[in-house]
Amino acid sequence: MTPTDRSLDALFTPASVAVIGASDDPARIGGRVLARFLDHFAGPVYAVNANRDTVQGHPAARSIADLPAAPDLAVLALPANLVPDAIDELAASGCRAAIVFSSGFAESGAEGKAMQDRLRTAAAESGMRIIGPNCVGTMSLPSGVLATFADLQTDVTPSAQPGVGIVSQSGALGSVFFHAAEALGLHVSYMCTTGNEADVSAAEAIAALVERPDVQAVMVYLEALSDPEVLYTAGRRALELGKPIVALKVGVSDSGARAAASHSGSLAAPDRFAQALLDRAGIMRAGSPVELVTVTAALAAGRFPAGDRVAVMTLSGGVGIMIADALDAGGLSLPRTRDETARQIEKLIPEYGSAQNPIDYTANAVNDPAGFAEILDAVVTDDDFDMVIISGLAMGTFDENLATIKRVRDKVTKPVVVSVSGANSVTVNRHGIPCVPDAVQAANAVVALKTYADLRARRSAEKPLLGDGSAHGTTHHTLTAEETRELLSRFTIPVVQEIDAVDEASAVQAADTVGYPVAVKLDSAVAEHKTEVGGIRLDVRDAAGVRAAVADMRAASGMTGDVPVVIQQMVGRGLELTVGAIRDSTLGPAVLVGLGGVMVEILDEIEMSLVPVSHADAERMLRKLCGGRLTTGPRGMDDATVKAVGDVIVALSSLMAQCPDVTEVDVNPLIVGEPGPVAVDGLVRVARPDMGQD
Amino acid sequence: MTPTDRSLDALFTPASVAVIGASDDPARIGGRVLARFLDHFAGPVYAVNANRDTVQGHPAARSIADLPAAPDLAVLALPANLVPDAIDELAASGCRAAIVFSSGFAESGAEGKAMQDRLRTAAAESGMRIIGPNCVGTMSLPSGVLATFADLQTDVTPSAQPGVGIVSQSGALGSVFFHAAEALGLHVSYMCTTGNEADVSAAEAIAALVERPDVQAVMVYLEALSDPEVLYTAGRRALELGKPIVALKVGVSDSGARAAASHSGSLAAPDRFAQALLDRAGIMRAGSPVELVTVTAALAAGRFPAGDRVAVMTLSGGVGIMIADALDAGGLSLPRTRDETARQIEKLIPEYGSAQNPIDYTANAVNDPAGFAEILDAVVTDDDFDMVIISGLAMGTFDENLATIKRVRDKVTKPVVVSVSGANSVTVNRHGIPCVPDAVQAANAVVALKTYADLRARRSAEKPLLGDGSAHGTTHHTLTAEETRELLSRFTIPVVQEIDAVDEASAVQAADTVGYPVAVKLDSAVAEHKTEVGGIRLDVRDAAGVRAAVADMRAASGMTGDVPVVIQQMVGRGLELTVGAIRDSTLGPAVLVGLGGVMVEILDEIEMSLVPVSHADAERMLRKLCGGRLTTGPRGMDDATVKAVGDVIVALSSLMAQCPDVTEVDVNPLIVGEPGPVAVDGLVRVARPDMGQD
Repeated sequence: MTPTDRSLDALFTPASVAVIGASDDPARIGGRVLARFLDHFAGPVYAVNANRDTVQGHPAARSIADLPAAPDLAVLALPANLVPDAIDELAASGCRAAIVFSSGFAESGAEGKAMQDRLRTAAAESGMRIIGPNCVGTMSLPSGVLATFADLQTDVTPSAQPGVGIVSQSGALGSVFFHAAEALGLHVSYMCTTGNEADVSAAEAIAALVERPDVQAVMVYLEALSDPEVLYTAGRRALELGKPIVALKVGVSDSGARAAASHSGSLAAPDRFAQALLDRAGIMRAGSPVELVTVTAALAAGRFPAGDRVAVMTLSGGVGIMIADALDAGGLSLPRTRDETARQIEKLIPEYGSAQNPIDYTANAVNDPAGFAEILDAVVTDDDFDMVIISGLAMGTFDENLATIKRVRDKVTKPVVVSVSGANSVTVNRHGIPCVPDAVQAANAVVALKTYADLRARRSAEKPLLGDGSAHGTTHHTLTAEETRELLSRFTIPVVQEIDAVDEASAVQAADTVGYPVAVKLDSAVAEHKTEVGGIRLDVRDAAGVRAAVADMRAASGMTGDVPVVIQQMVGRGLELTVGAIRDSTLGPAVLVGLGGVMVEILDEIEMSLVPVSHADAERMLRKLCGGRLTTGPRGMDDATVKAVGDVIVALSSLMAQCPDVTEVDVNPLIVGEPGPVAVDGLVRVARPDMGQD
Repeated sequence: MTPTDRSLDALFTPASVAVIGASDDPARIGGRVLARFLDHFAGPVYAVNANRDTVQGHPAARSIADLPAAPDLAVLALPANLVPDAIDELAASGCRAAIVFSSGFAESGAEGKAMQDRLRTAAAESGMRIIGPNCVGTMSLPSGVLATFADLQTDVTPSAQPGVGIVSQSGALGSVFFHAAEALGLHVSYMCTTGNEADVSAAEAIAALVERPDVQAVMVYLEALSDPEVLYTAGRRALELGKPIVALKVGVSDSGARAAASHSGSLAAPDRFAQALLDRAGIMRAGSPVELVTVTAALAAGRFPAGDRVAVMTLSGGVGIMIADALDAGGLSLPRTRDETARQIEKLIPEYGSAQNPIDYTANAVNDPAGFAEILDAVVTDDDFDMVIISGLAMGTFDENLATIKRVRDKVTKPVVVSVSGANSVTVNRHGIPCVPDAVQAANAVVALKTYADLRARRSAEKPLLGDGSAHGTTHHTLTAEETRELLSRFTIPVVQEIDAVDEASAVQAADTVGYPVAVKLDSAVAEHKTEVGGIRLDVRDAAGVRAAVADMRAASGMTGDVPVVIQQMVGRGLELTVGAIRDSTLGPAVLVGLGGVMVEILDEIEMSLVPVSHADAERMLRKLCGGRLTTGPRGMDDATVKAVGDVIVALSSLMAQCPDVTEVDVNPLIVGEPGPVAVDGLVRVARPDMGQD
C-alpha cells in the first residue's frame, strides 16, 4: 500500500472490518464492538484474539498475520503498549483504516507521546488512516459500521437515511451529541470521534463527511483548531454544497493566554482567532450543547431564507412577544401582515386573537383543522414573509395539523420552523420539518438560518487563508513615533498632526507649530505602556506645561539627556475606537476593531477578522458592534462615517498583508469626529531577524 | 357570604366542586372537567346542565338554584353571555370560588369589558373569588382538583407530594410549562392560570401558593405586572420562607414605549421598571421557557450556597471548560482543588484525567462505582467548595452512581446539581437531585443558586415600595440651570463650576471668572434637547468664541434679546456615566446609572433600581455594569471611585424620595475623573399642579 489514497472511504464505507483484541464477553470493549459488527455489518467481519479460536461463536485468528484477508477497517481494542506493533502489522497487511480506542498516548507523558509519534509515522508512510488514539470510535449507519464502544441509549440500526454527521474531538461528547440529536428526532448518519488525532484530524473528518450524499449537515465539537487550512477548505466547500457546519468550540479563558505589548495583542485572545477562522470558513458557531443541536436541526433541513422577514404564528400572544423580542435582538424583522392576508386570518380566528404579526391564531383555531389549514396556507404562501415560525399545536388535532404543515410547506421553498414541547417535537422532526422544543430556541434557530444564508450569499467573494504568519524572527522591536507615522500614512491611515522633539526647547518649538493645547507623549519605542509610566500628558496649555511634561518624562523613563517625545495636536471630542492588527503563527494576520479607547477592555465590544478584509467585511464588523446600535440611531455612526472607519480597517488589512515583518499594530484611540477618523496614538511592533542565526 | 374571607383556600382545597355547564361528552370542555373531577376528586362533585338529569352517568341539576348544596369551587363552562348571571347566582348561593374559562370579555371590546366589570363587582361584593375569565383553569394535585380543560399529555393523578407551583397569565403557556416541568422530572403540585384577572391576579395566586406547605418553589409567567404591591409582598414573604419564585416576564420592545424629555426617561423603558420591581421583590427572572424550568429545578431543591466556590466534576475535559467559562461569566469562582483532595482523586482516575478543578474524572472512573464513590465523597465533602456540579454519568453504572450521589449529597447541605442528557435527567430529578440536560444549563442554574442566596442574605434590609408616584399634576416644566444646580447641590451631588449669563458681555465676564477653555450651553429650561439645536459648544478658548457661541444660540433658540446660557468650566477627561431618576405612576421613583454619556443608548449598559437605594444597592448596580468589568481590572473604577459614584446614586434616591414633585432627573454626563465624579449637565423636570383645578 502506498500513501496515495489518503481518503477516509475505508473508514466510513469499508468492505470488511476486523476487531483486534476481540473479546468473547460483549460487556468488554473488544466484545461490544465485535457484537455490533456481527449484528449490523453486512460484509466480512474478522476477529483477532491471541488466546482463542472463536469469540462470540465467530471464528478468530490468533494474530493479524493469521487473518484470511486484510480488513479494510480494523478496530484496535488493545492495551496501549501493544498498539504500535499491531498498527505496523495492519499497515503492512494492506489494511486501509484503523481506529485506536486506547488511552495512554500523548495525553499521558513522554513515553505515550513517543508511541503516538510511531502511529503518526506509520500512517504517513503506509497511507493507512488512523483514528485516535484515545477516542470512542466512529459510526457509519448507511454502511452498518458501529465501530464504537460508546454507550448507546437507543437501538441504533443501519439506515440509508440521510442525516447529520457528528465530528467530535471528545469521545464522551460525541455520544452526548448523538443522543441529544436522536432525542430531538434529528437523525444522525455518521459519528466520528477523533481523540488525540495522531493522524486524522477533526477537520479532515469534516471534509470527508461534507462530501457524502447521506450527510445534510455536520455538527462539530472542537477543543483545538488543529489543521486550520483543512478546516477552512472544508468549510468553504460545505458552504458551496449548502451543507451547514455548526461548531461548538470550547473557549479557554481570555486571561493570560497571550503576553502582548498592545491592546491588539491582548484583545486577540485565542478564542477570537478561533471565531475569526470559523467566520472565514463559513462555519456557524453554537454557544451551548443545546444550541448546537437545535440550530443544526433547523439548518439541516436545507432551506435558507431569501430575506430577513419572519412571520411568527403562535397560539398565545405572550409567546409571540417572546419570539418577536428574540428575533429583534437577532436583527430580523417582523413585517405587518398585509391587509389581504390579515382579512383571511381574521375570518378564522376569534376576536381576541391577532392577525397582525406576531399572529396569534389562538388555541381555538388549532382545534379546527380545516380553518387552521387556511390560516397556515395564507401566511406561509405570503410573499411578504421569508421565513415562518409556528409555535404551539394541540394534542387533540396534532396529527391533522402536522399533515397540514407538511403539505403547505411543500408548496414553498422558504424555511418553516416549528416549536412544540415534549415528545411532539420528535414527531415533527421525524416528519422532516425542523422543530425545537422552546419558542426562544425557535427564534434563535431562525436567526441562524438568516446568518447562514448571508454566509452563503457572500461565498463567491472567496478569500484565501494567508496562513504562515510565522514571524521572521523571535525578537521584536517597537517602531519609533516617526516610523509608525510614516507606515500608517503610507497605507492612507489618517494620523493626528504631531512633531517629534527630544528636549524642552524642541518640544516648546513643536508646540508653537502645532498650536496649544497640545498632548505631550513619550515615544512608544521608549515605553510601550505609556499611560502606566506617566508617558502621556493631555491638554497642555502653555510652554511651561510642555517643559514640565518633558522633564517629568525624562525622569520617569530614567534618561538623563535627550528624551524622545511627540508633541501632538489635541483632537476634539469624538467617538473613541481601537483598531489594530495581530499576526498569528498559524492563522496569519487578523485585524480588529473595538469600541472605547482606554475603555476597550471594559466594554469588550470587539470584532476581529482574518486578513484580507474587504470593505464589505469591515462594514459588517462595525455593524456588529454593540448589537448594531453603534451604526444606527441618532447618536450612532452615519453611513459616511462607517465607510471612513471601514477604510482604516481595510488599510490595516493591506498593511498586514504587504508587510510580513509587522507582528502587531495598535491604533488606540482612533478618534472618530469631524472631519473623520484620526489615529491619535499608534504602536507598531516588527519582528527582527534572530541575531544568532544565518 | 360576606367579603371577609378573601383567601384562595376554596380554590386550592375545596370541600366540594361543581361544573356549571357540565357536558355528557368528555371531549367537550364541560365534559372534560367533569370527567376529571369524577376521576380524581374525593369530595362531592356537582353538575349543572340545563337540559339533562344525568351527565356521564352522574346526577345533574337543571340550575345552580337546584343544586343540593353550594359548592366550594365552581367551574363555569358556559358561553360568555351566560356567565355574569351564573356568577351572581353562585355568589348568592354561598359558593366561595369560581373559575371562568370563557373568552369574549375585556379582550373582545366594550361589551365584553362591561361583562367583565360585572364579574369584578360580584367578586368584590360577595367575597367569592373568581379566576379568569379567558383562562384554562387550575390544578391542585394534593386535593385532586384538576379544574382545567387543558390538554394533559401525561397521566396526572392526585398526589400529596410537594412540588412546584405554576402561575401563568397565559393559559396556553401554563400547560406548556406544566409539561416542560414534568418532562424534566420536576413535580408540579399546583397550576393556576389567571387569564383576564377580573378578580384574582397572578400576584395573589403567587402569594397564596407560597404559603402552601406542598409548594417548594413557584414558576411564573407574566405578561403584565398587575398588582405590583401584592407581587412585592409575596416576593418578600417567599424570600423569607426560602421558596424561590422564578418569573418569565415577557418584555415589550423598548421603542416608543415612553415619550420623555431626558435620557432617564427614555432609558426607563417599561421592561426596566419590571426588572427593578422583580429585583426589589426578590423574584428571580428567567430569559426563556427552558431557563424558567431548568433554573426552577435547581432552586426548588431548597439548597442555597454559602459562598461562590464551585467544584466542577465532569467525564470530559471539554465539558469542564464549557462549564468553567459559563461560571466565570456568571461571576462564580472555581478554586484549585486542595492538595489533599487532589491526591485522593489522583489515586482513582487515569493519568489523562484531572484532579484539578474542573475535575475530569474520566469515563473510566465512572465505570468503577466504588472508585467513583470515593471521588464524589472527597469532592462533595470538601469545605473549599460551596457548590458541586456533576456532569456526565454512564449507562452501565447509572443506578449505582446515582445512589452514590444521593448518599453523598445527604452528608452535606450544599447544593449539588447534576447534568445528564436525555431520559436519565428525569430519573435524577425524580430522585430529588436537581438535574438539567445540558452542561451550560447546569452552570447557569448554579449561578442562579448564588444569585438567590445573595437575595436571601440581604432580605433583612427590607425596603418598602414607595408606590404612588402619581405626579401632582399633569403638566410639567423643566428647571432652569440655577434651580437644577441648587437642587443637585442641596442633595450633595457635585456639580461642575458654572455661571449663568444672558448675553455676550455677561458670558465673557463669566468665562473670565471660570477660566478658559469653557463650555457654553443653552439653559435646559429653554431647550431640553440642547445637542440637537446646537445648544452646546465645548472647548471655547477665548472671548470671541464665547460671543459667537452666545449669538448662535440666540439665533437657534429664536430669541431676540437676552438668552439664558451657562458658562461652564471644562472638565478634564474621565469616564462618562449617566445617572438619572424617573417616577413611575404605579411603582414610584427609580434611579438608574448607565455607561457612556452621549453613548448611553448605544452601549445599552444600564442598571435601574427602585427608590430607596442603599449604598450597598448602588455599589451592586455599578458592579453589574459591563459584566463587572467596569469595577475590576486596571482601567476600571477603583473602590473609592465606586463609593463616590455610589454616593451620587444614593443622593439621587434621597432627592426622589423627598421631592415628590420631581418626575425626572437626568445627569449626563457625570464625568468620573480626578478628583471625583462631577455632574456636567443636568436636567430636572417637575410636575406643576393643574391650572384648571383647585
